[in-house]
Amino acid sequence: MFDEFRKIVEEGFERYLAPSDDCPARLRESIRYSVEAGGKRLRPVMVLLACEACGGDPTDAIPAAVAIEFIHTYSLIHDDLPAMDNDDLRRGRPTNHKQFDEATAILAGDGLLTLAFEIVAREIKPAEVAVACVVDLASAAGIEGMVGGQMADLQGERPEIADAAQAGTDDQSRKIAQLEAIHLRKTGRLLRSALTMGGRIAKADKNTIEMLDHFGKCIGLAFQIADDLLDITGDAAKMGKGVRKDAELGKLTYPGLWGLEESRRRARSLIDEACRSIEPLGDRGLRLEALARFVLERDH
Amino acid sequence: MFDEFRKIVEEGFERYLAPSDDCPARLRESIRYSVEAGGKRLRPVMVLLACEACGGDPTDAIPAAVAIEFIHTYSLIHDDLPAMDNDDLRRGRPTNHKQFDEATAILAGDGLLTLAFEIVAREIKPAEVAVACVVDLASAAGIEGMVGGQMADLQGERPEIADAAQAGTDDQSRKIAQLEAIHLRKTGRLLRSALTMGGRIAKADKNTIEMLDHFGKCIGLAFQIADDLLDITGDAAKMGKGVRKDAELGKLTYPGLWGLEESRRRARSLIDEACRSIEPLGDRGLRLEALARFVLERDH
Repeated sequence: MFDEFRKIVEEGFERYLAPSDDCPARLRESIRYSVEAGGKRLRPVMVLLACEACGGDPTDAIPAAVAIEFIHTYSLIHDDLPAMDNDDLRRGRPTNHKQFDEATAILAGDGLLTLAFEIVAREIKPAEVAVACVVDLASAAGIEGMVGGQMADLQGERPEIADAAQAGTDDQSRKIAQLEAIHLRKTGRLLRSALTMGGRIAKADKNTIEMLDHFGKCIGLAFQIADDLLDITGDAAKMGKGVRKDAELGKLTYPGLWGLEESRRRARSLIDEACRSIEPLGDRGLRLEALARFVLERDH
Repeated sequence: MFDEFRKIVEEGFERYLAPSDDCPARLRESIRYSVEAGGKRLRPVMVLLACEACGGDPTDAIPAAVAIEFIHTYSLIHDDLPAMDNDDLRRGRPTNHKQFDEATAILAGDGLLTLAFEIVAREIKPAEVAVACVVDLASAAGIEGMVGGQMADLQGERPEIADAAQAGTDDQSRKIAQLEAIHLRKTGRLLRSALTMGGRIAKADKNTIEMLDHFGKCIGLAFQIADDLLDITGDAAKMGKGVRKDAELGKLTYPGLWGLEESRRRARSLIDEACRSIEPLGDRGLRLEALARFVLERDH
């Protein structure tokens, strides 16, 4: 699905990761290793689909699509580090620090994050739109977004680094609120920025950008529920990583809180809400809707 | 020296690091710990001085000054990590990962880098200047700049991760070229971006920006030579970190290649070249000149 857009995005990666004398070869190899590891390319495809759904030319949005996938990739490299989630396997291959080394992996992540902002600032036109996209991306990826969410997630697993406010969450509704707060930041914000950037590049008005943002928020949560479900019911070979890891680690998950059936029901209901919210886009929004349904039905 | 500008910049830090419900408390504490550790604030002061020297209002440049110090701080946090330079002490206090923990330190660095771009994109006006500043900062900090330089520096110390091209550098002139290539990227590019951003915010013309860039390149190299000299002749108490560490590690340094006297002579000559290059700025450039001389005379 969306193979054509995925191909456009992957050609974009090539352009921005061409060899240069000023970048050490090993660092570039390490970056390419993780960027080219594949994956669904969900975020960059969303940028292009949102641009198209607002009547823009999706090719104008390629730099933003490349940038968001670079940021997603950097976050995976850093999250996998021994000091963080300590994962050896990602998409069926050794994680970056296993294939290279920890120092290289840290720098590859730092480099990808930095390159993402350079690409958007250099290539998105006009300057007002470039600036708005940098703000979308940075606020989504930063300490009140993805980085903050990863921190809160780690704190949930490690009482020794938890904030005082996180202590003693015994009752179910507080647990759910905390889980949702983590995911809204850790995955939700970046997905939303994919949609708002696509809209901005198509010169969509403020109401449309807000509509896309709400769509992104709903599918972000649905995506996370689907991820938790896949961890329980998924096939390790298709996933390219270990399954049932969350349960083994005693991690807070949606199926753990709600059970399988209720989790599935809520994910479906979020996708329905997402699709309803973009009805004003009419037929142009159909491919975005299809993407939303795919989030739920994917098996990896 | 430049206490007034340093104070303005430090007030800027406060504004951008105010508490928020969306950022975990420990993450913010860890960021503030490193940002508030002090230091010379050389880069942000340069942004303001360059803006002033080009006839601009230095207060317009505060967001860019804050951003560059955040990027400098992130680079120190990540460079100190066990997988990188493995330092326990920075500016007389435990390094970030010693005071907090490795995961928090990695995320604090990631968060600072991201926040830097958000601040510039949000606050610098007009959008064309903001975009140019994001490009300056990102290209200076990225894989062909600071991150690439840090990688090359590590590779110089660890043959097991060196690129094929780095092997067997026995002769003196190749060693010098390699050392210079590392420093031009690791510290030089970011210093240059401080000056070009200041110029851009003052709406300086292309020639003036290039002049500032050359000034920055000269003082960047002089700064590194002075740093190497301080490692040999410096006072550990004033430096707030161990001295003579480079020599113990058998690291390639300028005094190691040229001797003390010749290193001093070259640093002075670079500063002279820097000062000559900004003569066209006239009296408005005097404070930038004073800063250049300070780089050489500092004792920490």
